[in-house]
Amino acid sequence: MTERVFNFSPGPATLPYEVLVQAGKDVVNFQETGIGLIEISHRSREFMAVAEEAEKNLRELMEIPDNYKVLFLQGGASSQFFMIPMNLLGNGKKATYLNTGTWAKKAIKEAKLFGEIDVPYSSEENSFNRVPTQDEYTVAEDSEYLYFVSNNTIYGTQFPEFPETEKMLISDMSSDILSRKIDISRFGLIFAGAQKNLGPAGVTIVIIRDDLLERTPQNTPTMLKYKTHADKGSMFNTPPCFAIYAVGEVLKWLKKQGGVAAMEEINREKATLIYDVIDSTDYYIGHAEKESRSLMNISFNLPTAELEAKFIAEAATIGLNGLKGHRSIGGCRASIYNAFPRDGIVKLVEFMKQFELDNPA
Amino acid sequence: MTERVFNFSPGPATLPYEVLVQAGKDVVNFQETGIGLIEISHRSREFMAVAEEAEKNLRELMEIPDNYKVLFLQGGASSQFFMIPMNLLGNGKKATYLNTGTWAKKAIKEAKLFGEIDVPYSSEENSFNRVPTQDEYTVAEDSEYLYFVSNNTIYGTQFPEFPETEKMLISDMSSDILSRKIDISRFGLIFAGAQKNLGPAGVTIVIIRDDLLERTPQNTPTMLKYKTHADKGSMFNTPPCFAIYAVGEVLKWLKKQGGVAAMEEINREKATLIYDVIDSTDYYIGHAEKESRSLMNISFNLPTAELEAKFIAEAATIGLNGLKGHRSIGGCRASIYNAFPRDGIVKLVEFMKQFELDNPA
Repeated sequence: MTERVFNFSPGPATLPYEVLVQAGKDVVNFQETGIGLIEISHRSREFMAVAEEAEKNLRELMEIPDNYKVLFLQGGASSQFFMIPMNLLGNGKKATYLNTGTWAKKAIKEAKLFGEIDVPYSSEENSFNRVPTQDEYTVAEDSEYLYFVSNNTIYGTQFPEFPETEKMLISDMSSDILSRKIDISRFGLIFAGAQKNLGPAGVTIVIIRDDLLERTPQNTPTMLKYKTHADKGSMFNTPPCFAIYAVGEVLKWLKKQGGVAAMEEINREKATLIYDVIDSTDYYIGHAEKESRSLMNISFNLPTAELEAKFIAEAATIGLNGLKGHRSIGGCRASIYNAFPRDGIVKLVEFMKQFELDNPA
Repeated sequence: MTERVFNFSPGPATLPYEVLVQAGKDVVNFQETGIGLIEISHRSREFMAVAEEAEKNLRELMEIPDNYKVLFLQGGASSQFFMIPMNLLGNGKKATYLNTGTWAKKAIKEAKLFGEIDVPYSSEENSFNRVPTQDEYTVAEDSEYLYFVSNNTIYGTQFPEFPETEKMLISDMSSDILSRKIDISRFGLIFAGAQKNLGPAGVTIVIIRDDLLERTPQNTPTMLKYKTHADKGSMFNTPPCFAIYAVGEVLKWLKKQGGVAAMEEINREKATLIYDVIDSTDYYIGHAEKESRSLMNISFNLPTAELEAKFIAEAATIGLNGLKGHRSIGGCRASIYNAFPRDGIVKLVEFMKQFELDNPA
């Protein structure tokens, strides 16, 4: 077997190795049923137990109150961009969005199809290198909700604190769900595509306060109503079984690591190792302003594009993969979600120091 | 390891064992990259090649003309129920639907949100035990398309020939895609959830004639426009990578079996083995009328509900699983898609004969 490499990809991303090994067995023969995991009926006792345990562990890890539903949906986070306003706006209703990156911008575009969208803050002019502080925007009085992206994968920014407002919060947490403790009760809805901190691509988690299920306009297609899925425990139609299973395995692993509070500490320590290198030299320049730095994605530049290309290529030869930045801002990026091992970061930090010595600007 | 059982489930359903074994390896370490299949970037060279090969093999196996796009979408076949009329109707446009079962009925319900829906045929009064012949309905002159479900999983009915009409056909082939040769050029759109004949749950194949991509109303959410996905090779957002990979492996397996024509012959022979038992006795009663019989799902009854329960339970003890019929019509059902092995059918047929002897009515 090839040696396992350190995969810094932004998503799909590194998963715990023990989860992969277990999944590899279960795909062929699930729990000794003589049927593979990907062949077994979603209504079988065995699979229902998998889905229930995944939800139970997510509720426990995130301390989700009882008046919130947990949904396992298809269509990616991108489908939530329109489902949220389709279900919660309409009839000239208003919502407030903070424009902190590409994914926020896409969500704003879709929301405009369903209501009046107020965007009181944007960091687009500065290549989205920061998120706002509380005094940089106001939430319109008649807004139904305040929408924000808690972590911006491309730019490596993250809200250190969530917005303070009386309005209900809605957040795209695709790239930092389960990476830190949060107070769910401040949110109307939280969603996250699985392929960063949760599992493989193919399932999106939606956590929604149950009173919101009743707001959807009548003429909405059945599959696009949150209530449809909430009423059927995400089994209105055949769910993406494998992805749900894999999320469940990741959640079990996360519990073994000590849960979200423990993970938050580990994440902080992992990110600090890299930021310390960036801060100790002018050779590596972080993209994000210090106060907005993400613990999940670290975007940085080298003195020249040529050096960046060389850095990425040389890193790959020693098993440090996926360090290329997003095409929209270039440079380098290290995505270090929950499951990314500390050893890989230590190796990257050593490589960064040596590369600077070997390749003076 | 537990012995592999014969799994007659209607979907998710039996997959080729060699596909499971390969998937089990690739999940842990994909093509010796040192990265698991479910961790690797969807934009990596390796995964792009997987998606391209899957599409290429599907085109080859189904003889899909160049003016059709192949899309790998999320949301299940159930999402196609609304996406089709959302993209192709609107503004008082009309379409014709044939009501041959639960899934047709659900599609009709969603279509009514977007246009005038004509339903000139329904077999609902007879528990959907047949599909119509050509002279049993007419397609309205001003219909945009004729929609039908080519195989009705629950009732075990299947269109032996496709409707003859000048209108373009649209078909839900979730339960018989790739089971027989078809002439794609008669269709505007064909779709199929993967979890019966194609692979695991989590991806839906849509084959769409390219001129239809331009019909979508402007104010449709980006993710719900077929064109969005067609223009980006189904990579507008992160696709359900694992499900696409697994479909690709099933398609490779199907090519090795000799392709669709060979599979059609095998399917006919497999189904005949069971129908011969049903026809040779009054003990087993087929649900579908003979002319409408499905080669994929065989729904049948025993003299009493008690005997049916005993039949299903005893079958399970000898490794014949998932024979319970759908709750809406009760009884028994054997789902025998492409990947269901002939040996399992021989074993079922022997069991049926013995059970009748041991349990006279």
